Amino acid sequence: MNTSWWLDACQPLDNDAMEQARTRQQQLTKPAGSLGQLEALAITLAGLQGRERPTLERVAIGLFAGDHGVVEEGISAYPQAVTGQMLRNFVGGGAAISVLARQLEATLDVVDLGTIDPELQLPGVHHLRLGAGTANFARQPAMTDAQLRAALGAGRDSALRAAGQGAQLFIGGEMGIGNTTAAAALASALLGCPADALSGPGTGLDSAGVRHKAEVIERALALHGLQDGDPLRALACVGGFEIAALAGVYLACAQSGIAVLVDGFICSVAALVAVRLNPQCRQWLLFAHQGAEPGHRALLEALQAEPLLALGLRLGEGSGAALAVPLMRLACALHGQMATFAEAAVADRPA
Amino acid sequence: MNTSWWLDACQPLDNDAMEQARTRQQQLTKPAGSLGQLEALAITLAGLQGRERPTLERVAIGLFAGDHGVVEEGISAYPQAVTGQMLRNFVGGGAAISVLARQLEATLDVVDLGTIDPELQLPGVHHLRLGAGTANFARQPAMTDAQLRAALGAGRDSALRAAGQGAQLFIGGEMGIGNTTAAAALASALLGCPADALSGPGTGLDSAGVRHKAEVIERALALHGLQDGDPLRALACVGGFEIAALAGVYLACAQSGIAVLVDGFICSVAALVAVRLNPQCRQWLLFAHQGAEPGHRALLEALQAEPLLALGLRLGEGSGAALAVPLMRLACALHGQMATFAEAAVADRPA
Repeated sequence: MNTSWWLDACQPLDNDAMEQARTRQQQLTKPAGSLGQLEALAITLAGLQGRERPTLERVAIGLFAGDHGVVEEGISAYPQAVTGQMLRNFVGGGAAISVLARQLEATLDVVDLGTIDPELQLPGVHHLRLGAGTANFARQPAMTDAQLRAALGAGRDSALRAAGQGAQLFIGGEMGIGNTTAAAALASALLGCPADALSGPGTGLDSAGVRHKAEVIERALALHGLQDGDPLRALACVGGFEIAALAGVYLACAQSGIAVLVDGFICSVAALVAVRLNPQCRQWLLFAHQGAEPGHRALLEALQAEPLLALGLRLGEGSGAALAVPLMRLACALHGQMATFAEAAVADRPA
Repeated sequence: MNTSWWLDACQPLDNDAMEQARTRQQQLTKPAGSLGQLEALAITLAGLQGRERPTLERVAIGLFAGDHGVVEEGISAYPQAVTGQMLRNFVGGGAAISVLARQLEATLDVVDLGTIDPELQLPGVHHLRLGAGTANFARQPAMTDAQLRAALGAGRDSALRAAGQGAQLFIGGEMGIGNTTAAAALASALLGCPADALSGPGTGLDSAGVRHKAEVIERALALHGLQDGDPLRALACVGGFEIAALAGVYLACAQSGIAVLVDGFICSVAALVAVRLNPQCRQWLLFAHQGAEPGHRALLEALQAEPLLALGLRLGEGSGAALAVPLMRLACALHGQMATFAEAAVADRPA
């Protein structure tokens, strides 16, 4: 393995398949363009899958959890123990993403990168134990280089498992009390944007809590001196294990030729890290939704993303991406199954 | 049958079921409110179905087609023959709504209210033949009182067929070359809004075509003198058979206790007519999407609607509503199947 595997080339898109799909879209029995965003989506998926008529039968969901030392600064509405409790809920079938995975007939791969309970042992969870959560990045780097590399590699491993199962779409999800703080800090460092523009209520802070969160982030950014925009250093200093894993999974999917559906705020920060590390991966990333976290809009703009949904979601877990899957499947069904003007003997408009 | 059946009372919502659903939402293992619009949707459906945990297994799609005499004013990009050709495509399985109905396992009830081909006879289509399309409303009322009453009744019949099949959700779709012109004229009369604010490209007019369309509408509104805002008279003077049928179906669904999912611009105009005729029906109407037709936004605002999707759709046929169904089904699955904090032994945030 290349010591910096994330720099390896990503798969190219299949331009012939995209052109065939574009031609087909023009021939289907509807006014040109009348299916809006779903038309471009079908054409993009044709390019990613290398076939005129793409399908999305096999969806893989990878859920990455980790704890965050910065929680000791009082930046979350929930206690840190919830990360481990939710891991149990994910494999127990009661969490939102568990319900959605069942409904979509998607696989659900749950990875514990390191929580505050190092004894946690749950059937069905990959426990990687990179540490008892990250260190408090308000005082020191969140993770060591070895931890960073292991977290990126954990994402890559999940992508390779999905590739082995023939996944046509990968959804990354995250869980980690405190991770909107890490994500906002990372976004702030990478976008060169003040922390208060990217800090939001997360799971439910009040306005004083949001102000405090932004102050903690500003202090950390000053401590670590992240003005150079180096994505790996920013990830190590103020990121999180699950955010690094997501960046790794996005990069490895692009290298393996698996389309990615990016979830909300935290996943979009991981996507930004991935794109900064290896810009080729951008074309493998599709964006599911505009979430409620205020900083999400700036991130989507920086990524030139046009998400499918805007439902005011702020749950994480990959849930917003999962919710967009049926829409993508219907876009494929329309593209693949509608009759052409010639087949249906319907008059097209005069040229 | 009451001679003005559309004035009969609509079914009440079940407030107890809504309250139970609201309580349940607060107990599910997620930050309160984090599922955004899907939480309120599940609670509303609980009220409409009278059960704490609603489901949407049985979806009925009613597709109403009719031709428009106003096409002779040159207001459409497509020839009028397409209405009948598309009827064949609907039952042949090649149209967008046919594909979507199959994917959703929804029933598809196709009603021809009157096209320019009075001989048209297609297996699987209810041919009602109210006329060879409406009259040209730029010169005379679009329909007679008898035609108006028959079109409203055709919608009611479709709703009663759906009720007989136990439908939990009704989607109305429309097809009719020229029907964005009729819909814009109706909306203009009912909202007291200039025609150019509500006229758009429809299936694909250029900007000169859109201006001409608005002029035709302004002329018709002046001819018929529709300032009094009487919805039935406006419907008869500038509406269409399929628009009247949609208004009828929405009213009858509300009277029969079937939730309605309203599609795009034309269906929203029919919904406005229904609400003006019998305001009680409003609470049975859910709105699927914000379409690309520029006048749709004003209509949704007038109806105080918060649609689920905004994908730049402008196809009609009920396709935008059908695309929103999986999202509604997932909202029900999340609401019904997620674990509570107590069941999953997850710590809720401190009160």
